[in-house]
Amino acid sequence: MNAKLIAVGSELLRFGRHDSNGDWITERLQRLGVEVVGRALVGDDHGRTAAEIGAAVDSADIVVLTGGLGPTEDDRTREALAQALGLALERDDRRVARLREFFDRRGKEFHPEQEKQADRPSGAVWIDNPLGIAPGILYRGESFLVIALPGVPAEMKRMFDDTVAPLIGQAGEGRLARRVLKIGGRFESSVDAQVRDLYDTPGVEVTILTGAEGIELHLLATADDAGQARARVDRLDRELAARLGLDLYGRDDETLAGIIGRMLVQRGDSVATAESCTAGLLSATATAVAGSSCWFRGGLVVYSDDLKVSLAGVPPDILEACGAVSEEVARCLAQGARRRCGADYGVGITGVAGPGGGTEEKPVGLVHVAIAEDDQRTEHWKIQQIGGRELVRRRTVVFALDRLRRALLRRDPA
Amino acid sequence: MNAKLIAVGSELLRFGRHDSNGDWITERLQRLGVEVVGRALVGDDHGRTAAEIGAAVDSADIVVLTGGLGPTEDDRTREALAQALGLALERDDRRVARLREFFDRRGKEFHPEQEKQADRPSGAVWIDNPLGIAPGILYRGESFLVIALPGVPAEMKRMFDDTVAPLIGQAGEGRLARRVLKIGGRFESSVDAQVRDLYDTPGVEVTILTGAEGIELHLLATADDAGQARARVDRLDRELAARLGLDLYGRDDETLAGIIGRMLVQRGDSVATAESCTAGLLSATATAVAGSSCWFRGGLVVYSDDLKVSLAGVPPDILEACGAVSEEVARCLAQGARRRCGADYGVGITGVAGPGGGTEEKPVGLVHVAIAEDDQRTEHWKIQQIGGRELVRRRTVVFALDRLRRALLRRDPA
Repeated sequence: MNAKLIAVGSELLRFGRHDSNGDWITERLQRLGVEVVGRALVGDDHGRTAAEIGAAVDSADIVVLTGGLGPTEDDRTREALAQALGLALERDDRRVARLREFFDRRGKEFHPEQEKQADRPSGAVWIDNPLGIAPGILYRGESFLVIALPGVPAEMKRMFDDTVAPLIGQAGEGRLARRVLKIGGRFESSVDAQVRDLYDTPGVEVTILTGAEGIELHLLATADDAGQARARVDRLDRELAARLGLDLYGRDDETLAGIIGRMLVQRGDSVATAESCTAGLLSATATAVAGSSCWFRGGLVVYSDDLKVSLAGVPPDILEACGAVSEEVARCLAQGARRRCGADYGVGITGVAGPGGGTEEKPVGLVHVAIAEDDQRTEHWKIQQIGGRELVRRRTVVFALDRLRRALLRRDPA
Repeated sequence: MNAKLIAVGSELLRFGRHDSNGDWITERLQRLGVEVVGRALVGDDHGRTAAEIGAAVDSADIVVLTGGLGPTEDDRTREALAQALGLALERDDRRVARLREFFDRRGKEFHPEQEKQADRPSGAVWIDNPLGIAPGILYRGESFLVIALPGVPAEMKRMFDDTVAPLIGQAGEGRLARRVLKIGGRFESSVDAQVRDLYDTPGVEVTILTGAEGIELHLLATADDAGQARARVDRLDRELAARLGLDLYGRDDETLAGIIGRMLVQRGDSVATAESCTAGLLSATATAVAGSSCWFRGGLVVYSDDLKVSLAGVPPDILEACGAVSEEVARCLAQGARRRCGADYGVGITGVAGPGGGTEEKPVGLVHVAIAEDDQRTEHWKIQQIGGRELVRRRTVVFALDRLRRALLRRDPA
């Protein structure tokens, strides 16, 4: 089964607003084994809403509307629904009486405009709203189910869990399984070329995308039951893992820093950083993980050249001869971080984040990364990033974390 | 003029994902005087995407698509676009040559599947992508304009600002004016109570919300022409500014770090940091501003106690007597940052970010912030944050930046 969500309300189309009702319903439907195949946001516009409903019932099994069920003039989901379905809008007298009673009991005046909350398309049934006034509406067509819920999150959620979920649950037990595989140090096109033939695995949908920390493969399996769906995901996961090897660094909510931390803790080792162009973004990212004080010693943010010397111990003659953005200085920073912070591993970063400061020889986006593993051994990478300042810095941090992960993997645990 | 946005990508329909590209475009279009009348999210489904495009061009002046322009098999926005518009999809040989050249220059292998990024509907034109590989597509119909941009946020934004915005700006003069006022060091409810009566200003809509760096008041004026709209915003801005005083720190794209940097540059002064629980997040935030090397000296990430002593010069007896999370240590960190990094101002932060490490006396969320202005003067604040680890760290950084701003404002420029 699949579903389309339509959120109604002009405020949702303004900057800074966000259809959190739709996010919540997406998650609930997924658990019920219903795939959300589309979402729409429309303003308080009767005609546009009707057009969206019409398109949605043509292409989805379940259509869930939120918003536009209140008593005010711009609440016109009821009319849009009737129009889209080609049904008359009928006023339910018994519901009018209940509305009146609701107001009477609270000693509030009943304005006649409240009555429209008792309108529904002919043949529709009410969904009870235990927390508010406006009831929801449910209409069962030949090939679809339409559900209209209020936009007030608390009311919508309660009505969904009380009435909508059991109804859908009867129709289809949870039959989806989901997993995200995370891949470091690769481009999307190269991962895609390597695993593309597996996209056609029956019963599993695979989406590739670029996440915050590298490439992600999202697996979504459908099956007759949840166990079978999970087995499908497991099987494809094993195949992908075999192909991707060490490039596959984690799954679902795992992060590079979390994985690095786990390896370091197991070995009783620690890491420290010396950053120029990323200026603390690497240390901040590493320590975003709870418990990082067990393995992250500290860091040096050596933004100015004299601090590269005084704080990180870069020899002045090397800085002078090679320049701040150089392989040599990156190596000295990595060693300096290790030594000055008393860590087992040291990471050094120096580069041109831009937008200014680039030269022909050292353009914006040029970054040197080095990792020191002991007094002698220092690995180094020269990378050329594209993108603006923030992107250059963020991608550099992800690159450095991934290289540290690989350095740790290569070393046998002590 | 009005617009519909269509975000393409199955990942956007999963729980936990969110169409932030659409939010950004909504804001940009608003500034251009274009009203967003609908938004849709569709999966990587060729037919569904074509149906959405078809419906959108029937009802909107401008249709903006994001996503599905990459080289992989599920990137099918190009085909969907051609299908919806009833046009042939044509491969542009010159664009193929450019793609090859891009890969050659970087010494990377060119896979044949990359070539599809040179496909466009007959009669469409390219939108240059200065930050990535896949170009955007622009098609001008009789009554509509369709724009397809990549889903990678940095690329999309750059292409929108470089190419799309000027194009739309020519077509229709904006009759909207918009401004964001940014307020530091206050709670939403207190700002709301102070300015609420101004929400009813005719012709200007006011929305209050909590942004990344404090409270924001979004003003949106409509009028018969752009000048009148701007005048309305200016008038309300002046009234709000008079009430908010020093709490109002900036407007629109201004950030705390940008404003601090401007003040420091004017005075020829500099700042340095010593961070424990925020571990580089303050220095990374300060240096997110281009040109920050003129006023940001460097920082010490003293995550472990012995580094607080060896790197930041906190006297061991104070550390012992007061504990790492204390007013005394925060003051020593601020002074240590100043001295060790040779800066005019020093900021010290120490606290319990959580989720572990809290005690009855020093609970999770307790943070000490100190700012050293010279050898003698050090201001200190003890704050109790609520929220998870990430929120505690981010809010602490915003707090520290706002306090530094106020310290600079108090000091007469030398």
